Amino acid sequence: MTADFAFELLATDGTARRGRVSTAHGTIETPTFMPVGTAGTVKAMTPDAVRSTGAEIVLGNTYHLMLRPGAERVARLGGLHRFMNWPGPILTDSGGFQVMSLSELRKLDEDGVTFRSHIDGSHHRLTPERAVEIQNLLDSTITMVLDECTPFPATRDEAASSMHLSMRWAERCRAVFEARSGYGLFGIAQGGVHEDLRDESVDALVGIGFEGYAIGGLAVGEGPELQRAMAAHTAARLPVDRPRYLMGVGRPEDIVDAVLVGIDMFDCVIPTRSGRTGQAFTRRAVLNLRNARHADDPRPLDEDCACPACRDFSRAYLHHLVRAKEILGSTLLTWHNLVYYQDLMRGLRDAIAAGRLAPFVSDFRAAREAGDLVPL
Amino acid sequence: MTADFAFELLATDGTARRGRVSTAHGTIETPTFMPVGTAGTVKAMTPDAVRSTGAEIVLGNTYHLMLRPGAERVARLGGLHRFMNWPGPILTDSGGFQVMSLSELRKLDEDGVTFRSHIDGSHHRLTPERAVEIQNLLDSTITMVLDECTPFPATRDEAASSMHLSMRWAERCRAVFEARSGYGLFGIAQGGVHEDLRDESVDALVGIGFEGYAIGGLAVGEGPELQRAMAAHTAARLPVDRPRYLMGVGRPEDIVDAVLVGIDMFDCVIPTRSGRTGQAFTRRAVLNLRNARHADDPRPLDEDCACPACRDFSRAYLHHLVRAKEILGSTLLTWHNLVYYQDLMRGLRDAIAAGRLAPFVSDFRAAREAGDLVPL
Repeated sequence: MTADFAFELLATDGTARRGRVSTAHGTIETPTFMPVGTAGTVKAMTPDAVRSTGAEIVLGNTYHLMLRPGAERVARLGGLHRFMNWPGPILTDSGGFQVMSLSELRKLDEDGVTFRSHIDGSHHRLTPERAVEIQNLLDSTITMVLDECTPFPATRDEAASSMHLSMRWAERCRAVFEARSGYGLFGIAQGGVHEDLRDESVDALVGIGFEGYAIGGLAVGEGPELQRAMAAHTAARLPVDRPRYLMGVGRPEDIVDAVLVGIDMFDCVIPTRSGRTGQAFTRRAVLNLRNARHADDPRPLDEDCACPACRDFSRAYLHHLVRAKEILGSTLLTWHNLVYYQDLMRGLRDAIAAGRLAPFVSDFRAAREAGDLVPL
Repeated sequence: MTADFAFELLATDGTARRGRVSTAHGTIETPTFMPVGTAGTVKAMTPDAVRSTGAEIVLGNTYHLMLRPGAERVARLGGLHRFMNWPGPILTDSGGFQVMSLSELRKLDEDGVTFRSHIDGSHHRLTPERAVEIQNLLDSTITMVLDECTPFPATRDEAASSMHLSMRWAERCRAVFEARSGYGLFGIAQGGVHEDLRDESVDALVGIGFEGYAIGGLAVGEGPELQRAMAAHTAARLPVDRPRYLMGVGRPEDIVDAVLVGIDMFDCVIPTRSGRTGQAFTRRAVLNLRNARHADDPRPLDEDCACPACRDFSRAYLHHLVRAKEILGSTLLTWHNLVYYQDLMRGLRDAIAAGRLAPFVSDFRAAREAGDLVPL
């Protein structure tokens, strides 16, 4: 528990980075994908199963955890690591994003945001100080500053004033964050789809100083091209000696694009949520297991995958589980998708280290195009 | 796959029996509890997890499997063992019970029963011959004869004519069952709560001859006292050299009672269904994890249990999962309940072998009474 929070840059390939984050709860090889453990559980998976996929860090949602079971309760029970039996690193978001997307009757002011719980209608208040306090109670390895995720579309003035508010909040978060060895606080760059606002935001955050930097306000409807462009522009301005986290991204192809421009950390609900709705990622295509064409197919999901779903079961069986709404279907497809994502990240890491990222990405794209032409 | 289907009586303690069933798919130590794998999956559990609880045989429901994914499809895919990745013994029921309890517009005649699927309204026909054929397609280790589960309450005349129909069907099942080494066909005694009808049914079945004998038509509302009395009466008349299976029973205390009178095999949805609704069996009480009193409780469910739910998590966490309707809550509580049931069966087996069943049962009952007095 005495390790410094540190980022080591091990190799680069173009603008892509191979690195390692050291924390109080263990090291994280980057680029890394963090499965989303919304309410203290990566849905449908035991922590042992999550670990077996290769995941080294999981994400928890402050909004969900503060409402249920409550941050003070988690603290009394020994913190989120012990509560959910995940001794490795945990990153928590600030709650701001879900307040805007899930809660009711929210009211934003300079000091913070008031909202009603989507669970029981109870009233809650989130300020920069309280967001940091909650994440401290949860014992998060990586705390995120409270920000306003600028909606898309927004006018330039709206994006600017929203970003300025987030920067004032970032400063307040930094002021109250309790420094502990191996724990880190990440700032979040905003600015919508405006390069100059993104620049201003990065400069403000670097001026404050954080253990890592996130790019927020993307994956909110701007589309893959703008997303790619803004991630590339913002990443290029971030300090090289700190981890860079692109929040909420994304599809495998989005992650590959973002790794190419120098992003180190990712989270997304896609592999877990897709797994619960019958979708499976493979090296060649995204399969919808509800589809009747899988009903008699004795093949595994993906012959090149070593996960339990591919090792032990046929597509026909997985199709049956999905159709019958069996819990095991959610578990197996989630498991497979997380292994797919972790295998992808390992492939990216190895390719960067070997200076072979360009052919790796070519192969990745070619396989997907082949899959589009010949649906599996 | 060449082992004979055989029952070996290893020890007795009073009327209780410690035995071993040898099958084409492995041996089963008795008394045994068979987790219910309704639609080709023990709900919320991987087969590896089921095996880790100590289960040696699982039950599949012919009614569910014939409707979805279909018996012919399972056969094309290599049988139920391969389909669900359970290489061990599988017992399938005949489908009769669920036809009566789940299907729509059912019509019973001498030859069989016609019904509409509760899933899609399609019409189906089940006869003794088709029930055996379906179970053969599934590659069931133990096939059950088609019978009519006599409803409770029923008049003596109704119980008699229902039982007589089941005996005629049992004979037809025996006639078409394809003898294969290590596979068995079980007859089912009916007769409601009438001792003389039970006697007549047992005699008819023994006259036909089966690899094992089940007691059906109990656990349908007659209450624990009548259930116990009828199980005891019927078991006493069954051949000593064949396994005895009390269908659909039951609660831990019902199983203990039935083992005392010489029953060898059990199945019940209680541990799995209870797990999915937040109930956990412990040595002292049945806990409802939804209850708010668990919200801050750092203790494991059961300090004497080695299952993952007890080893890795607090009651507070399990309470949280149940309240948040997280899939992991269903998985962990099902896992725990199955381990509880398997531990109970192991305890019963060891006690019979050691000639110490009476003190074992006394301790079991005393712990439960203590739990009733001091809720955990």
